[in-house]
Amino acid sequence: MSPITLSPAATLAETYGQVRAWTERLCASLEIEDYVVQPAPDVSPAKWHLGHTTWFWETFVLVPHAPGYTIFHDDFSFVFNSYYESVGRRVLRTQRGNLSRPTVAQVYTYRAYVDRAIGQFLAHTTLSPELEALIRLGLNHEQQHQELLTTDIKYTLGHNPLFPPISLPIAEQAPDQPTEPIRLRAGVYPIGFREGDGPFCFDNELGAHSVYLNGATLSGQLVSNGEYLAFIEAGGYTQFGHWLADGWAWVNAQQIMAPLYWHRIDGQWYHYTLQHGLQPIDPALPVCHVSYYEADAYARWRGNRLPTEAEWEVAARQQPELAWGLRWEWTGSAYLPYPGFSTAEGAVGEYNGKFMSGQMVLRGASVATPEGHSRPTYRNFFQPDKRWQYTGIRLMLS
Amino acid sequence: MSPITLSPAATLAETYGQVRAWTERLCASLEIEDYVVQPAPDVSPAKWHLGHTTWFWETFVLVPHAPGYTIFHDDFSFVFNSYYESVGRRVLRTQRGNLSRPTVAQVYTYRAYVDRAIGQFLAHTTLSPELEALIRLGLNHEQQHQELLTTDIKYTLGHNPLFPPISLPIAEQAPDQPTEPIRLRAGVYPIGFREGDGPFCFDNELGAHSVYLNGATLSGQLVSNGEYLAFIEAGGYTQFGHWLADGWAWVNAQQIMAPLYWHRIDGQWYHYTLQHGLQPIDPALPVCHVSYYEADAYARWRGNRLPTEAEWEVAARQQPELAWGLRWEWTGSAYLPYPGFSTAEGAVGEYNGKFMSGQMVLRGASVATPEGHSRPTYRNFFQPDKRWQYTGIRLMLS
Amino acid sequence: MSPITLSPAATLAETYGQVRAWTERLCASLEIEDYVVQPAPDVSPAKWHLGHTTWFWETFVLVPHAPGYTIFHDDFSFVFNSYYESVGRRVLRTQRGNLSRPTVAQVYTYRAYVDRAIGQFLAHTTLSPELEALIRLGLNHEQQHQELLTTDIKYTLGHNPLFPPISLPIAEQAPDQPTEPIRLRAGVYPIGFREGDGPFCFDNELGAHSVYLNGATLSGQLVSNGEYLAFIEAGGYTQFGHWLADGWAWVNAQQIMAPLYWHRIDGQWYHYTLQHGLQPIDPALPVCHVSYYEADAYARWRGNRLPTEAEWEVAARQQPELAWGLRWEWTGSAYLPYPGFSTAEGAVGEYNGKFMSGQMVLRGASVATPEGHSRPTYRNFFQPDKRWQYTGIRLMLS
Amino acid sequence: MSPITLSPAATLAETYGQVRAWTERLCASLEIEDYVVQPAPDVSPAKWHLGHTTWFWETFVLVPHAPGYTIFHDDFSFVFNSYYESVGRRVLRTQRGNLSRPTVAQVYTYRAYVDRAIGQFLAHTTLSPELEALIRLGLNHEQQHQELLTTDIKYTLGHNPLFPPISLPIAEQAPDQPTEPIRLRAGVYPIGFREGDGPFCFDNELGAHSVYLNGATLSGQLVSNGEYLAFIEAGGYTQFGHWLADGWAWVNAQQIMAPLYWHRIDGQWYHYTLQHGLQPIDPALPVCHVSYYEADAYARWRGNRLPTEAEWEVAARQQPELAWGLRWEWTGSAYLPYPGFSTAEGAVGEYNGKFMSGQMVLRGASVATPEGHSRPTYRNFFQPDKRWQYTGIRLMLS
Repeated sequence: MSPITLSPAATLAETYGQVRAWTERLCASLEIEDYVVQPAPDVSPAKWHLGHTTWFWETFVLVPHAPGYTIFHDDFSFVFNSYYESVGRRVLRTQRGNLSRPTVAQVYTYRAYVDRAIGQFLAHTTLSPELEALIRLGLNHEQQHQELLTTDIKYTLGHNPLFPPISLPIAEQAPDQPTEPIRLRAGVYPIGFREGDGPFCFDNELGAHSVYLNGATLSGQLVSNGEYLAFIEAGGYTQFGHWLADGWAWVNAQQIMAPLYWHRIDGQWYHYTLQHGLQPIDPALPVCHVSYYEADAYARWRGNRLPTEAEWEVAARQQPELAWGLRWEWTGSAYLPYPGFSTAEGAVGEYNGKFMSGQMVLRGASVATPEGHSRPTYRNFFQPDKRWQYTGIRLMLS
Repeated sequence: MSPITLSPAATLAETYGQVRAWTERLCASLEIEDYVVQPAPDVSPAKWHLGHTTWFWETFVLVPHAPGYTIFHDDFSFVFNSYYESVGRRVLRTQRGNLSRPTVAQVYTYRAYVDRAIGQFLAHTTLSPELEALIRLGLNHEQQHQELLTTDIKYTLGHNPLFPPISLPIAEQAPDQPTEPIRLRAGVYPIGFREGDGPFCFDNELGAHSVYLNGATLSGQLVSNGEYLAFIEAGGYTQFGHWLADGWAWVNAQQIMAPLYWHRIDGQWYHYTLQHGLQPIDPALPVCHVSYYEADAYARWRGNRLPTEAEWEVAARQQPELAWGLRWEWTGSAYLPYPGFSTAEGAVGEYNGKFMSGQMVLRGASVATPEGHSRPTYRNFFQPDKRWQYTGIRLMLS
Repeated sequence: MSPITLSPAATLAETYGQVRAWTERLCASLEIEDYVVQPAPDVSPAKWHLGHTTWFWETFVLVPHAPGYTIFHDDFSFVFNSYYESVGRRVLRTQRGNLSRPTVAQVYTYRAYVDRAIGQFLAHTTLSPELEALIRLGLNHEQQHQELLTTDIKYTLGHNPLFPPISLPIAEQAPDQPTEPIRLRAGVYPIGFREGDGPFCFDNELGAHSVYLNGATLSGQLVSNGEYLAFIEAGGYTQFGHWLADGWAWVNAQQIMAPLYWHRIDGQWYHYTLQHGLQPIDPALPVCHVSYYEADAYARWRGNRLPTEAEWEVAARQQPELAWGLRWEWTGSAYLPYPGFSTAEGAVGEYNGKFMSGQMVLRGASVATPEGHSRPTYRNFFQPDKRWQYTGIRLMLS
Repeated sequence: MSPITLSPAATLAETYGQVRAWTERLCASLEIEDYVVQPAPDVSPAKWHLGHTTWFWETFVLVPHAPGYTIFHDDFSFVFNSYYESVGRRVLRTQRGNLSRPTVAQVYTYRAYVDRAIGQFLAHTTLSPELEALIRLGLNHEQQHQELLTTDIKYTLGHNPLFPPISLPIAEQAPDQPTEPIRLRAGVYPIGFREGDGPFCFDNELGAHSVYLNGATLSGQLVSNGEYLAFIEAGGYTQFGHWLADGWAWVNAQQIMAPLYWHRIDGQWYHYTLQHGLQPIDPALPVCHVSYYEADAYARWRGNRLPTEAEWEVAARQQPELAWGLRWEWTGSAYLPYPGFSTAEGAVGEYNGKFMSGQMVLRGASVATPEGHSRPTYRNFFQPDKRWQYTGIRLMLS
C-alpha cells in the first residue's frame, strides 16, 4: 500500500479513502479496552488518535471550507484538540487516558460522519492549490498518527503484565540489508526539499540551502542487537564516562539498564513484540527503542559518532540503495530551523516550528512508517530521552 | 435487599450469591470503556474492583481451604492484589488505569469461575467458626468495594467533559428526615461492638471499652446544601481564619471553591449526579462530597464543632430513629486503635490496623452503602482531604 | 535557671531579661555562618529564631500597646513573621535560608532595640491582666524557640560533613533515672490545666474535662539505645508487619535504617552529638530522635503500645517522682482540641488551634526544654515523621 | 587588569597571583553571611566558589605533580568537588547552601595555603607543555568562576527583600557602542580556534573546520531596554504565537512577565543593580538577564532571528571593532561538538563535552567576564531557560 503516491488515475479522494482505511486497519485486532488507556503522558489512547485525526479534517477543512457543514458534536473539539493553542481549550495530554467517553463506537461514528462529509466535499469542490496543499497536509498528519498509533499500542500492551500479542499488518521484525559504507567527500552540498522531490513536504524541510561537509563515511548498516548487547555486557550503563551529563542523570533516575521492552529473565534477554509477545532477542536484527542518550553513549563507547542530519541526507541521496526505513536513525543534530524558515499563519503554523528547542533530529523512517510517507529530506524529532518510537543507531565510521 | 441479614432459612451461600450479584448489578449500565480508566490515584477502575473482590475469595478462601482448587490465571494475583504486602507483588494503585488487559469479559469469566468454585465449596464443606468468620469478612469486603465502585464510577463520569448520566439502582438524591436534637448526658458510656450487636463486625470495632462524655447535643439533621451555600457566599473559602493550617494549604493548592462536583455556570450552582448528569443544586438536600477540612471549617464558621466518634455512637444507640445513613458523617476523631486492639495474624491482619495514622473517622453510612452493611459501631476512615465518597456534616449544637 | 517561676521579689521584667539572655547564650559559640543556613524546610536558621522572637514582642506588645514606639525596620516584619496569616505577608518557611541580610549583627541590634523598648514599657506601665497574660505568652513563645534553636543548630551541624562540635549549656547526654512502673486504675480522671497548676498554660491545655481510663501500667523508664538496637538488629526496619502503612512508605521513600544522627561506620554505630561530634552509641542512654512511626513500630514489635496523652498525664500527676523531662515522649493520641476548646481572636489565636490535624501529641519535655517551661498538662505536637526534636519512647506495659 | 595576557617579562606565577587576587577582590565588600546562602540550585554560595577553585588547583596540580604536598583537609575534596564524577563523592549542587562549615575564614586559609604551595611549585618546577597547559586551564577555570561569583552574588542580593547594594569593581551599567551592521557574504568560512589565535582555548573550540554561510547581516548593536519594553507593552509575554512550545510552558509555569530582576512598582519599571540597588530602567542600555526563550520570542516578534554561532564568529573576526563584550549573546545554535571533537582522558575531560545536550551557545562576553578571558571562538552555553548570567540579544537583520 502506497497511500500518497498518486498514480495518474488516482484522485485525492481515493488517497483519502486509503489513508483513512489504513488507520482503522491498524486497530482491527484491538479490544475495546485497548483503545482507552494511557500508560504514560507521551502515549495517547488509540481512541484519541482516531478522534484527533478526524477532528483535524473537521476543524481545518470542513468547518472553514465546506458550506453548510454541521459539526458532529460540540464537545469533541475540546476532547480531541492536541496542542493547537489557537483553536481553543484542550484536554491536557496527561489526561487523555481518563476519558471513558466518547465511546469507541461513538468515535467510529464520528469518523464515518466526517468521511462522508469529506467525500462529498471532494466530489463537489474544485480545489485551489492552497486547499489541495491543506488536504495533503491532512493526509500526512494522519500518517504520522498511524505511526504513533502503532507505537502507542505497543507501549500499552508492552507494559501490561500479561504481555498480550496482537495481529498487526506491519513487519516489525524485518531484517537489515547491509550495503557498503557511504563515503562522503568534503564540499558544499544542497540540503532541504527542492522542486522535483515529490508532491509534498512539511514546512520544516523547506528553505533549501547549502551546507559544507567535512569528508566522512557513513555505515551501510544499522547497529544490531548483538553489537548493542556487547555494550551492555561491557558495563556500558554503569560507566558515566560514555554518557552526556543529562543522559547519565536519566539512566540513574529511571534505572535504565537496556533498551525499552527488554527484559532479562533467568539470565536471558527477551523483548516484547507486538505480534508474538515476549521473544528472545535476535542478535542479528537492528537494535530498536533506544534513546538519543543511549545512541550517543553507544557511539562514544565504539569510538565513533552519530551522523549530522546533513551528512545523513547527502548519503541517502548519493546512494539510493541505502537500506534506510527500518529504524528512525538518531542524528547528532539538534532540531532547529533551516535558514529562512518561517512559520505559517494560523493554527497550521503551530505544526512544527514551535517544537524547535530541546529535541534531536531523526532521519529515515521505521517499520511503522506508512509506505511513501518519508523521504531523504524528512525531519523527524524527539526529545533525547524518548525511545518508544522505532528508533535505532547508524554510526559514522570516520 | 439486605444481603447479610440471615433469615432463618437463608444460608451463607445464598447471601454470597446476593452480594456477588449486587456488585454486577451496579455495573449493569456501564460501557466497556467506563470499566477501564482511573482518573485519580484514589479512584480504581470498575474492572479492578470486579477482579479484586474475586481475587480476595480466591486467595483467602479457595486457595488455602478448597482442596484441588486450580487458580484461574497466574498473573491475576499480581494484577488484582490491592495493598496486602504479605501476599506478594502488586500493581501500584496509581497504575491500575494503565491496564487494558485482562478485558472486562475476562474479568466476568473470572468471577463466574470463582463463584462456581465457592458454590461447590460451600455446598460440600462444614464450616468451622473461623471459616465462617472469614466468609463473612469476604462478604463485607465485597460490600465495601460496592460502595467504592459507585463512588469511583461517579468520579470517572463526573470528570468527563460530557458529564454522561447512567442508570444506577441507588437513590442518590434521597432527602434528609430530620429528628429532634439528641441530648447526651455527661457520664461514662460503653463504646464498641458487643455481643448481640449482630453477626459481624470489623476488627477495628472490637475492644469494647468505656468513654466519658461531657454533656452535649447532637443535631437531628445533616447540614443542607442551602446552609453550606451560605458559607460559600460569606466567603468561607477565602478566609483562612476558619481553616486548619493543612486545610488552608489544601484549599489554596487545589484551588478549592465548593464541594466536589459543584460547578458555577452563568451565576448558578450545578452539581453532577449519576442519574441525571448536571443538575441545579437543591438547597434542601444534605450537602455531599465535602472533605474533613471543609466540614471542620464549616462547623467553626457556624460556631459549632463536629461530634467525636464516641458521641456519635452513643447518640445513634440512644435514639434509634436518628436518620443516619444518607452521608458518611465526618467526626472530629482521628482514626486510632481502641484500647486493646490487636492485629490479626497474616494478610487479613493488614485489613484495618495499618491505616491508623493520618485519617479521620466517619460514622453512619451513605446512599451508596449496601443495605445492612453498617451499624452504630462501624468505623469508616479517610484522609482529611478526601471527598469523593458520599460525605456530609452533622454538627454538635453545644 | 528557672525563668518563669516568679519568686515573690521577682518581676516580669526580671524574667524577661533572663529569658532573652538565655536565647543569646544558646548561640554564644556559633560562628556567623552557623546562623544563616537552613538545611531542611522544618529547620530555621538561628538568625531567624533570634529575629522572629524579637518580632513577636515588637508586633504583639510594643506596636499595639506602647505609645510612641517606632518600628525598628519596615521590612523586618516581612522577614521574621512565621505563620501568622493575619499579620501580612511572610517569607516562606522554605526560603528562610536564602536570606543573607539582615546580617547577624543587625539582628542583635534589633534585639537590643526591642529589649530597651520592652524594658521601658514594663517600667512605666501598669499591666492589665490581659497584658500580663500576653507577656507571659511571649516568654513561653521565646522558650519554645529556645528549644527549636537547639534542635535546629543540631540539625545544621549534624548534617555538615565535618560534624563540628560546639559548646552548649545543655546536658544533652543526661542518663535516665528509672522508677517503678506506674499503675493506673480504671476510672474517670480530670484532664487539662486547672487553677493552681501554675502561672501559665497554652490555650490547648485549657478546657479541663474528664476522661475515662481503662486500667493500665506505664513504664518507669524510657526505651534505651540498647533496647532499640535490638529492634534494628532483629530487622525491624525491613519487616512491614511492624509498621503503619504511612510509616512503611516513609521508611522506604527516605531509606530510613536507624534514628536520626545515627551512622554505621565500620560495623559500629555512632551518633552525632552537639558537644562532642561523632560518638559511639551508649546502650544505656535513652534512645533519641525517633519519629512517631518508629516509636509505634518499636512498641508493636515489643508487643506493647504507646500511652495515650490522658494516661501519660494521669501518671505524671500520680507519681511526681516519675523522671520525665529527658525526651519528648510520643503518645498514641492525635493532636485534637479538648472539649470546649476555642480559638482566641486575632493573630494570637493562630498559635495552636490551626495545627490540630495530622499531628501526634508528645508529652513531657526534653534536655533542650528550658527549665520550668513544661508541666504535666503540656501538649507538644509534631507530624508523625518528624524526629529532629529530642523525641523518645516510653511504653505502656499492659 | 588583563590577567592572562603575558607580557614578555610576565611569568605564569605572576598571572596566577593576579587571577587569584581578582577572585578575592570581587568578594571584598561582602558580609560573612553573603558568602553562605544558595537561593537557587544553579546559584552557588560565594564561599563555595572560593573553595572550589582552590580545590581545582590542589586536586589537579598539587596532588599529582607536587611531590610531598600535604592535602589541606581530607573532607574538603568532598565539599568542594563540583561535578567531576571521576574524582569521588561530591556535595549535591542543591545542598551547597546548607553548609555553614568550613567557615569563610577557613576557606581563606585554605586559599592562602594552596597559593603558597603553588607559588613554591612554580618557583621550583620546569613546566612541561602539558603542565603549562593544565595551569592555563586552571587560570581560565578560575576566571569562569569569577563571572559566576558575580552573577551568583547578584542573584542572592537581588532576591533579598532588602535589595542591598554592594561595592563591586565592575561597570555593570556600561552603555553599548553601536557600529554599522556587519554584512556576511555567502561562502565557506573557517570556524574554530586556530594557531595564532592566542595562548589558550577550551577543548570545545578545537577542531577547526569549515562552515557554509548563506549571506546575511548581523546588527551592529544589542537590543536595548527600550526596544524590549516595546515587546512587553505589546503583550509579548501573553501571546503564545511568539514562543517556542517549551518557552511558552516556562512563561506560564514561572509566571514570567519581564527580564530577571525587573520589578514594576507603581506603574514604573525598576531593576536591581549590584552597585545601586533598585534603579529605574534606562531605555538606552542593552537589555540584560533574558533567557534564550525570551531572546527567540523577541526576535520572532520583530520578524528577525538570532545569529548562528558560526555567523557570529565570522562577523566578530571580520569586523574587529564590533563592540561585543557587554552581554553574552544568545545564538540560535545548540551546543554540540565540532566535527572531530574528542574528550580528554580523566577528570579534565569532563570539563565541557558531557554538557553537549539541551543547551544553547552564547557568544561574546559580558561586563562580568574577566578581561582577556574571552575571544571570537569562545563557546559559552546554558539551558534555554537560564537568565541569571549577563545575557542579551543581538539580531540578524536579514
